[in-house]
Amino acid sequence: MSYATFDHDGIRRVGELRGTTLIPLTGISEIGATTDSRVLSSAPREDTGAVPVDQVRLLPVVPRPAKIFCVGLNYRDHVTESKRDVPGYPVLFGKFATSLIGPYDDIVLPPESSQVDFEGELAVVIGRAGRRIAEADASAHVLGYAVANDITMRDYQYKTHQWLQGKAWDASTPIGPYLVPPDEVTIEDAGIRTVLNGRKMQESDLSQLMFSIPRLIATISAFTALAPGDVILTGTPGGVGFRRDPQVFLRDGDEITVEVDGVGTLRNTVRDGKQPVGVSA
Amino acid sequence: MSYATFDHDGIRRVGELRGTTLIPLTGISEIGATTDSRVLSSAPREDTGAVPVDQVRLLPVVPRPAKIFCVGLNYRDHVTESKRDVPGYPVLFGKFATSLIGPYDDIVLPPESSQVDFEGELAVVIGRAGRRIAEADASAHVLGYAVANDITMRDYQYKTHQWLQGKAWDASTPIGPYLVPPDEVTIEDAGIRTVLNGRKMQESDLSQLMFSIPRLIATISAFTALAPGDVILTGTPGGVGFRRDPQVFLRDGDEITVEVDGVGTLRNTVRDGKQPVGVSA
Repeated sequence: MSYATFDHDGIRRVGELRGTTLIPLTGISEIGATTDSRVLSSAPREDTGAVPVDQVRLLPVVPRPAKIFCVGLNYRDHVTESKRDVPGYPVLFGKFATSLIGPYDDIVLPPESSQVDFEGELAVVIGRAGRRIAEADASAHVLGYAVANDITMRDYQYKTHQWLQGKAWDASTPIGPYLVPPDEVTIEDAGIRTVLNGRKMQESDLSQLMFSIPRLIATISAFTALAPGDVILTGTPGGVGFRRDPQVFLRDGDEITVEVDGVGTLRNTVRDGKQPVGVSA
Repeated sequence: MSYATFDHDGIRRVGELRGTTLIPLTGISEIGATTDSRVLSSAPREDTGAVPVDQVRLLPVVPRPAKIFCVGLNYRDHVTESKRDVPGYPVLFGKFATSLIGPYDDIVLPPESSQVDFEGELAVVIGRAGRRIAEADASAHVLGYAVANDITMRDYQYKTHQWLQGKAWDASTPIGPYLVPPDEVTIEDAGIRTVLNGRKMQESDLSQLMFSIPRLIATISAFTALAPGDVILTGTPGGVGFRRDPQVFLRDGDEITVEVDGVGTLRNTVRDGKQPVGVSA
């Protein structure tokens, strides 16, 4: 079973997906710090409160992670494209919860950047706390998977050698639509693709990850305790707009989707904006 | 008047410092997201609950910032030492709240790193929310100042070109001891120094900042809204252990202080640890 964090009539809730209906879970307002896997599977279901998915707004599936870790250059083909060596340690950088938006929200182009680019990614959500987690034990710490588009302002990313200001724009990063627990999907070789206005821009599968999900969990938890609701964005395949010839950047009216087989699909419309739309989180 | 977040008999509170006594503020358990400047100055004081500073544990002055921004290479002398060009945009990277410790807590050396280094810094705490804040308006968004030691695991920092894994170790970064509001200190040319076992290692003053506090606030708020409790670590002067010849790293039993004139002094003892001590936050 999959789960969503959603807003219905101004109330934030978590629901279990059954077909095209969400069944609210009693006493849980969002997937995050308080939801380990037992909480989600054991919370009472309010069958009488079932609501069709198309009558709610899906929120970032984890609206307020305390920590978001992003991985750079984790697909073999993207490393080749970026003309970098295959690293011995993952490239890690951070993002803040304020960057997240819902899976079908508009991506609003900030007026400051003229190089807004896509990065389709698999997101891993942590469900059990741990520090110095062994690679062999890592899978027990995964609450589930989701899809993310690590929207990146390339002109800001490369202003200095550190990437934060290209990656941490408010309300830029769709994540969702659902949290899919590990027993619902074979993630190890799931396909991932990004499609822009019907044109396939990125396509790979998770077997191409140089740093596997267990290895990322072991590596990150060496320096900081992972906690329920923490999110790891596992990196993007080759084909990003910045590395194309000619380069491709997002424009007003673009439709962009990111899909991971067995996990789900993000669909976002790109809009020009004088002011980015914030997510109240 | 200055403020501390402290623990007394297991209860977390905020107090106003009067001499060597803390006067608790009613209804405020920490400096952070809910404390703009008006909240701190107008909250009722519980004079009958006054407690001597030496009978409490001072916590990270902001225990749970939603966002911590760190600035690299912001003093003219440190840029020279690092053999880098003077940048046109500040070097920015992130840190998570889980890295913070109290101003007098032990700095516990993680067994994974053999290059634990100091970086004395001025910390700026935000007190008023804002996006795209003009440099001229920035000072109105400052709640106050504190002192930080941006403890850095150099062997981890340089594992890749991104620094997160050298900067985000749990329970590594002392911050405090007090929040000093802007009207209590002339920050523009305040002296800053780091002393290791009685030996002065870093010394500069805030007039050496290449990116001033207002400019940092304007630059960061271009891409993300600053909110009360957010923290900016403004960078460190020359003299860090990694750039010395011979190099100097922290060892069990070291005593390290970081002082900013008019703001305060951190004093930490360095301890070997099989497991870093976490801050429950």
